[in-house]
Amino acid sequence: MRIRRNMIRKYKIGNPIETDSVIEAIPEILIDQEKAVIPASGEGGTETIIPASGDSNSKAVIPALGDENSGWIVDKHGKKLTFSMSSHACIYGLGEQVRGINKRGWHYVSFCSDDPHHEEGKTSLYGAHNFFVYDSRDCNDNICFGMYVDTPGRVEFDMGYSDPDEISIIFEDFDAYIYLLKSGHPSGTIMDIVRQFRRIIGRSYIAPMWAFGLGQSRWSYMNADEVRGVADSYDKAGIPLDSIYLDIDYMERYKDFTVNDDAFPDFKEFVAEMSGRGIHLVPIIDAGVKIEEGYDVYEEGVKGNHFVKKENGDLFTAAVWPGRVHFPDFLKEDTRRWFGDKYKVLTEAGIDGFWNDMNEPAIFYSEDGLKKVFEKIDGYKGKNLDIDSFFGFQGSVSGLCNSEEDYGSFYHEYKGQRIRHDKVHNLYGYNMTRAAAEAFDKIAPDKQILMFSRASYIGMHRYAGIWTGDNMSWWSHLLLSIQQLPGLNMCGFLYSGSDMGGFGGDVTEDLLIRWLSFAIFTPLLRDHSAMGTRRQELYRFKDTDMFRNLVELRYALIPYLYAEYLWAADNNEMLFKSLAFEHEEDARAMEVEDELLVGRSIMIAPVYTQNASGRYVYLPEDMKMIRFRGYDDYDEEQMKAGDHYVRAQLGEVLVFIRKGHELPLAMPDMRVRDIDTENIHYIRN
Amino acid sequence: MRIRRNMIRKYKIGNPIETDSVIEAIPEILIDQEKAVIPASGEGGTETIIPASGDSNSKAVIPALGDENSGWIVDKHGKKLTFSMSSHACIYGLGEQVRGINKRGWHYVSFCSDDPHHEEGKTSLYGAHNFFVYDSRDCNDNICFGMYVDTPGRVEFDMGYSDPDEISIIFEDFDAYIYLLKSGHPSGTIMDIVRQFRRIIGRSYIAPMWAFGLGQSRWSYMNADEVRGVADSYDKAGIPLDSIYLDIDYMERYKDFTVNDDAFPDFKEFVAEMSGRGIHLVPIIDAGVKIEEGYDVYEEGVKGNHFVKKENGDLFTAAVWPGRVHFPDFLKEDTRRWFGDKYKVLTEAGIDGFWNDMNEPAIFYSEDGLKKVFEKIDGYKGKNLDIDSFFGFQGSVSGLCNSEEDYGSFYHEYKGQRIRHDKVHNLYGYNMTRAAAEAFDKIAPDKQILMFSRASYIGMHRYAGIWTGDNMSWWSHLLLSIQQLPGLNMCGFLYSGSDMGGFGGDVTEDLLIRWLSFAIFTPLLRDHSAMGTRRQELYRFKDTDMFRNLVELRYALIPYLYAEYLWAADNNEMLFKSLAFEHEEDARAMEVEDELLVGRSIMIAPVYTQNASGRYVYLPEDMKMIRFRGYDDYDEEQMKAGDHYVRAQLGEVLVFIRKGHELPLAMPDMRVRDIDTENIHYIRN
Repeated sequence: MRIRRNMIRKYKIGNPIETDSVIEAIPEILIDQEKAVIPASGEGGTETIIPASGDSNSKAVIPALGDENSGWIVDKHGKKLTFSMSSHACIYGLGEQVRGINKRGWHYVSFCSDDPHHEEGKTSLYGAHNFFVYDSRDCNDNICFGMYVDTPGRVEFDMGYSDPDEISIIFEDFDAYIYLLKSGHPSGTIMDIVRQFRRIIGRSYIAPMWAFGLGQSRWSYMNADEVRGVADSYDKAGIPLDSIYLDIDYMERYKDFTVNDDAFPDFKEFVAEMSGRGIHLVPIIDAGVKIEEGYDVYEEGVKGNHFVKKENGDLFTAAVWPGRVHFPDFLKEDTRRWFGDKYKVLTEAGIDGFWNDMNEPAIFYSEDGLKKVFEKIDGYKGKNLDIDSFFGFQGSVSGLCNSEEDYGSFYHEYKGQRIRHDKVHNLYGYNMTRAAAEAFDKIAPDKQILMFSRASYIGMHRYAGIWTGDNMSWWSHLLLSIQQLPGLNMCGFLYSGSDMGGFGGDVTEDLLIRWLSFAIFTPLLRDHSAMGTRRQELYRFKDTDMFRNLVELRYALIPYLYAEYLWAADNNEMLFKSLAFEHEEDARAMEVEDELLVGRSIMIAPVYTQNASGRYVYLPEDMKMIRFRGYDDYDEEQMKAGDHYVRAQLGEVLVFIRKGHELPLAMPDMRVRDIDTENIHYIRN
Repeated sequence: MRIRRNMIRKYKIGNPIETDSVIEAIPEILIDQEKAVIPASGEGGTETIIPASGDSNSKAVIPALGDENSGWIVDKHGKKLTFSMSSHACIYGLGEQVRGINKRGWHYVSFCSDDPHHEEGKTSLYGAHNFFVYDSRDCNDNICFGMYVDTPGRVEFDMGYSDPDEISIIFEDFDAYIYLLKSGHPSGTIMDIVRQFRRIIGRSYIAPMWAFGLGQSRWSYMNADEVRGVADSYDKAGIPLDSIYLDIDYMERYKDFTVNDDAFPDFKEFVAEMSGRGIHLVPIIDAGVKIEEGYDVYEEGVKGNHFVKKENGDLFTAAVWPGRVHFPDFLKEDTRRWFGDKYKVLTEAGIDGFWNDMNEPAIFYSEDGLKKVFEKIDGYKGKNLDIDSFFGFQGSVSGLCNSEEDYGSFYHEYKGQRIRHDKVHNLYGYNMTRAAAEAFDKIAPDKQILMFSRASYIGMHRYAGIWTGDNMSWWSHLLLSIQQLPGLNMCGFLYSGSDMGGFGGDVTEDLLIRWLSFAIFTPLLRDHSAMGTRRQELYRFKDTDMFRNLVELRYALIPYLYAEYLWAADNNEMLFKSLAFEHEEDARAMEVEDELLVGRSIMIAPVYTQNASGRYVYLPEDMKMIRFRGYDDYDEEQMKAGDHYVRAQLGEVLVFIRKGHELPLAMPDMRVRDIDTENIHYIRN
């Protein structure tokens, strides 16, 4: 597929910062209220743009593609763009965010944020993914377009929150590239737009096939014997496993690119031992570099001018896991090269998988912030705190984490310019991960490396996957992890998944079973949990057979899932679509928020409520239902399009095969590499 | 209905504290592991009890009524009772708690707690309601029983959380009365058990009919003109309204039983003015009494020995809204009499409605706790805080609120004994509210007074209603407020409702419409929101017509709702039942968590998801569906038992009328008193 340039308009507002997220050149159309409005030249043809008049209320209009009458209002003084929605229009996209697949009715702030307790009232998560599609084609106005707001600082998408019938995009600085995408022809589809967008942002990262195996993680496995014990327990339980994750405690006092030799003596040999068993060890790398005399990464960083600085030129000091750290300036090419090369310490020890964490960057406190709070506390002491003072005191202490003030107090060197961090905040995790990816070609040219990041921005999808960050052992977070996938796929993040079972909080066996029953379809399948919470390894629960059957089913599905994943990457397609993406004329399908098409052949309908033994399913077309209890234990039933209540007891997985399609099932094994892909069993419809 | 005593067994474990929750005398059966097990005498007959042997692992058994083989294991050393559940058994009850109607699969701690952010991972809410019904009658073992754990301190109900097939009740002190209730005959119903339980705890409080009108609240309306403005705006919008709530700012610096004369000059006249317009003002009363020289309530309290004390005899000082306060010892009869009489200041000003708040009691900080934290902070200062110290510092500051240590540091005089607060914590709000109710007979004998409380314990249902405490503008809290009602009704709390639209967080118009569409069926219908959040009065949103239609529908429903409410109170019945309570043999009905039978004639099926224009409904029997858009604008449709997808656009309310029943609809008016109850329109099925 080639780019149809007349499908895409690029508007320039103010003086945008380049983000390297779009890699195809598109001619620009300048939007500037004071000067004039300059239509695009070249292939794009001329736009109908209402020029701005002189008064302060004047507005420039970006016409909505496909409709001359309802356009985008550019309000420079309000620093926002607004658009009138038709009453039943849906909005899809925004990647990793709270709430449902249809983003209408809430507001979302793109500002990469460390917030495990993300309930529906929150507005920011770990990623910043500013692409969405507006679709009102079941209504009278019949409009469908995509919009990508390319700006690396804070931006708010008010999707019918303030006014139920209006989109407002509110900027902190009114500097951005806006890409408007329309479908190729009048009856074009949402997928036309998604494919065009994906084409201009470039091909998604491809993970190795073993990364589709089950991963077991915990903050933290404290030593080699504990890791061995996890592998042994999985083997003993007969539950397939391909990787074990090393959280922060594998390091020597949380120092990047070190290994705690007491806990993991002869690390290289240990990696080889586990590798010999078919288990990949996947260590974490954090963004902050510990301040410690004699620690090579710290000393090189200082010497090489690699750390971010305050306005006065002093190094910015924050605290995360290791205590006081400096943050590498990943936005600087030179620093990326330096930091990327550091991964060599681990790749040379045989490591072929990484997760980059804390790279929003998360900040527990800054040195300056803490000092200020202590000074403030001095002022309170001895006094009779009234209630306002008390809440002020408490708020200033709790507000030390990830504070706006800190994010506005250090600077990057980016493309030759000095830029305050908050203006480019959303590029930080992206460029940390890019640093590693660009290094891997050099330091590990023969290896296909698994890598995923917590923070991200569009563009990073070319370098790595993401996981959806710290979450909780909540049924609502199981549902959220289902609902996030279409938006992530739209933005190019194909290798993804949530912390299965929930990271924080205490899981229950039934929640873990239901979450696993869904997660066996996501590329990243990782059981992860936090220190202090209930142990969450699958072999620790009562019904080991059920867990084994579900993981075996995953391994049987890998040939299908991996093939569809590669197809999606190669064709700018989505691995996970909600029904709306395939059945655009079906008003009922548009509202289905809990079923997903997985690849080209199947649909899934996970159970995500406690104590349920079944659920309602809407079929947009006739399908064959498979009710799996294991890869070789299932019922089949032909079902008509429409509404059904379907039984799905704990341990049962509902898969619906589309007409004319087939679902291949391999013979599972204990490791992905051992799956028998020669003898495939097909279930056909 | 008379009590069938052979349906109820009362077991005594240790030395329980009397709670005054059960008002019918039931002969006791002592459970004591060391001494022996004494069977009940009298009408109860002899129980089959396995006596304890001498070793430390010995157990005494309370037989599960109806089944000799599966009993309750009493484990004194573990301070717990355990019971093996059959695989599909359901558990109903526990009143105000998180999660679904079926409480199975989570653990719940009865300890009245101020926690607005109550997501599904929490274990305690504002009330402590220790009654539940276990029902496994669709399974082989065919058991249905009720249990009431009467103990006023902390107790945990592990309902299949630690082990999916086991109930554990875990005590802090192993002192409790346990009431076991069985249904009257082998094929008896859940409702048999509920009615027996309600009979022994006494008749529920009856609210005046005007309290079924719409109430508008906000923290806070700051002065009389603002209150007038709210009434004016409702009148102007043509939306019926019966009450306006006064949150803490009506008081003079948050002092109970005072009025801020600057903001509300001539309060009595203002109450009369509003009363003349048919608007009841409902002021808040907080538990803590401000420490302030010259403030009569404070001075009388000190003089009269009415405040709780620390172990050393000093008064316990905490801080809430007024800053430093003392807490009245509501557990002391004398103090209840004194405090209850104080309400006279307001009843004499014409007030006939109250809400008692902050009576868990919520504690922002205690004087001693704050001192300790400041000392701790002194130790941190100047040092290079490592991460553990930092989290320790932050945790000690955030932990000042509602701290366990504070609850264990003051004492009550209760029934002639000195008892540490945490041992009787759950009786505090109960007895504050009882103080007021007992006074009303004396100080306002001619008035039917509205009163509801935030904290509660079973027994308090005789004196007042409850609202479900501070919540959030979350769709999940709308669902929770639906799911809490059957449990609340089981425990006698009939006059109840949630903060419609959500107290904390920012509401959206669609959430408010959907919440209202449900709340028009709950006795308490109050729109309440917190300072700093989006304004939430119904007239502030775009679609005023829709809000008016919904509130008018409520007013048209009041004759039905109030009659069914009185019937439920008089007959120990439930106003809100889930389908399981009426259709016990229907396994599908048992799983329905989002439909409620309201009174004897109708079922409701609220929409509680964003962007939905309909929902699935399960009908356990043939019913007639009414799709209301207003009291005089609706469709009717006969529907068969089974599963349906039903359209319900924003503003549409689904009501299902049972066969042979009718729904009366009155002509609404702007005030409850003006509803035309002579000309009732009936929709019949």
